[in-house]
Amino acid sequence: MNRIGIDIGGTFIKGGIVNDQGKILFSTKIATFNKERTVIDNLYKLIISLIEKNKVISNDQISYIGLGVPGIINREKGIAEFSGNLSWNNIPIIEILKSKGITIPIGMCNDSRTACIGETMFGAGKKYKNAVIMTIGTGIGAGVIINGKLFSGNGDKGGEIGHAILIIDGEECTCGRKGCFEAYAGARALIRDAKKQMLKDKTSLMWKYVHNAIENVDGNTAFACAKEQDESAIYVINNYIKYLGEGLLNVCNCFRPEAIIIGGGISEQGEYLFSKLNNYVKEHNYGYKCTPKVKIIKAKLGNRAGIIGAAFINDFFERK
Amino acid sequence: MNRIGIDIGGTFIKGGIVNDQGKILFSTKIATFNKERTVIDNLYKLIISLIEKNKVISNDQISYIGLGVPGIINREKGIAEFSGNLSWNNIPIIEILKSKGITIPIGMCNDSRTACIGETMFGAGKKYKNAVIMTIGTGIGAGVIINGKLFSGNGDKGGEIGHAILIIDGEECTCGRKGCFEAYAGARALIRDAKKQMLKDKTSLMWKYVHNAIENVDGNTAFACAKEQDESAIYVINNYIKYLGEGLLNVCNCFRPEAIIIGGGISEQGEYLFSKLNNYVKEHNYGYKCTPKVKIIKAKLGNRAGIIGAAFINDFFERK
Repeated sequence: MNRIGIDIGGTFIKGGIVNDQGKILFSTKIATFNKERTVIDNLYKLIISLIEKNKVISNDQISYIGLGVPGIINREKGIAEFSGNLSWNNIPIIEILKSKGITIPIGMCNDSRTACIGETMFGAGKKYKNAVIMTIGTGIGAGVIINGKLFSGNGDKGGEIGHAILIIDGEECTCGRKGCFEAYAGARALIRDAKKQMLKDKTSLMWKYVHNAIENVDGNTAFACAKEQDESAIYVINNYIKYLGEGLLNVCNCFRPEAIIIGGGISEQGEYLFSKLNNYVKEHNYGYKCTPKVKIIKAKLGNRAGIIGAAFINDFFERK
Repeated sequence: MNRIGIDIGGTFIKGGIVNDQGKILFSTKIATFNKERTVIDNLYKLIISLIEKNKVISNDQISYIGLGVPGIINREKGIAEFSGNLSWNNIPIIEILKSKGITIPIGMCNDSRTACIGETMFGAGKKYKNAVIMTIGTGIGAGVIINGKLFSGNGDKGGEIGHAILIIDGEECTCGRKGCFEAYAGARALIRDAKKQMLKDKTSLMWKYVHNAIENVDGNTAFACAKEQDESAIYVINNYIKYLGEGLLNVCNCFRPEAIIIGGGISEQGEYLFSKLNNYVKEHNYGYKCTPKVKIIKAKLGNRAGIIGAAFINDFFERK
């Protein structure tokens, strides 16, 4: 039987019909915010359209609907306790969807956990019993797999690796702390640092790359120009690798997984990024020679991980 | 039946006869290094003396001998892979002790793990299924308890929280990294920072406290003088609380335990330290209001934790 996986983002709610082998058979999306409807109404509309679509492509019914929701989620109660991006405070999502007439079982969890579930069950994490799966986009989300199970911490609030600090009193983070890993190694930080360097170096290729409009700088700008040997861009990237590398070394020392699997926008830089990262971590590996090395590898499912993982939330948490 | 627990330190090897309820019935120690014998010979001598002593105080035999060894230990193979303080490199401790004629079952693990086992089974950790037990002395050792079991990471090398950094490119750490938690919140760091401040302020009470000999500064100096309202000492302690607090917040965000239990020399500062720490962590708790608070509490067993925990290594790792 097919399932539905939903990935609620700040711009789009993406949804897909996923088969039992973790393959997306159909996917679609809807704007998260619009004038006519609330976010939940948009979500409901998307789910109904997917249920209808499944009738066309399959003879069977949908067995499960899973939602990946940003923020602090109470998985067992089905409540979005706090989601800044969606302005949700203690919203009983599952209850609301049921009250609208959906009878298919619904589950939910945090969206960085769904990506982690997808990669663990069907992607780069399949062969590891101990891995940390990180999604590095605007922010940094992480899922820690210990003995094949998601480590969740008290109240399901552990594994917030992005909010361990790298620099006391450093850059402000959205979480309220200063100097978090995320504030140095998320795409937002990379963009900030590229802009800073551009203001120092008016001849940098980065200016040309963004057509002289600094507001066009994105997570790719410095990478693209570093590959073209622009010195300022190389400076920004080397710094970025250092921040990211130091954060990963912290993860190594705290969790010592077999592998760290990185997905999200940054991972699209591919081999250029991963070879530098692996070198950094190898060179700076925790003093003792007999400490097992940690592989830093790219996630396999790309932006499909969220949908696929969401479709398997219950399977994952119930597996032995 | 009684057991023997051994705590191998850089200055003394301490050993005790421990009953099944985790009570030390007798304890003694021997210098770790001396001219006549190797460290292992000293260890052997201490064990034999405890076996003999047990014959006097009990009608029964010793059922188990457990060793807490500093450094990187291969618990399953019984090998000290690397112990800088003891100059041990790949030493098969258990095999050597057996070859000398000891027939009682012997187990071993890292000494910060033994302290953690002691606190978890018989001390402040008894009531928590998820706790981080830290020993803050010269360095920082940690044991992470998840669902009642020690989290060990790949190759038993995880949980090295003391070697997650607080400040990129910061103070040098003994592990080879720069800016580690240990390099800011271990006693060595506190001593360094007290000395630094004393050199800036020749009128500080700390000078009087160490009889004008800066080499006498120890982990207690700044605390003692801060309690006497010396401004420079207060400055040092406030900084120290901040470093320690930020490191504990990292632990909260990564592991989100129910409690962090602190033992080791620093914990002797008692309520003065713990009230400040709890306030710091409460004030700077991870942004989201619905994140469970983490209690910061003092370890109960003091320096007995190492001996008691060592005596129960096998029980601990085999318990369900």
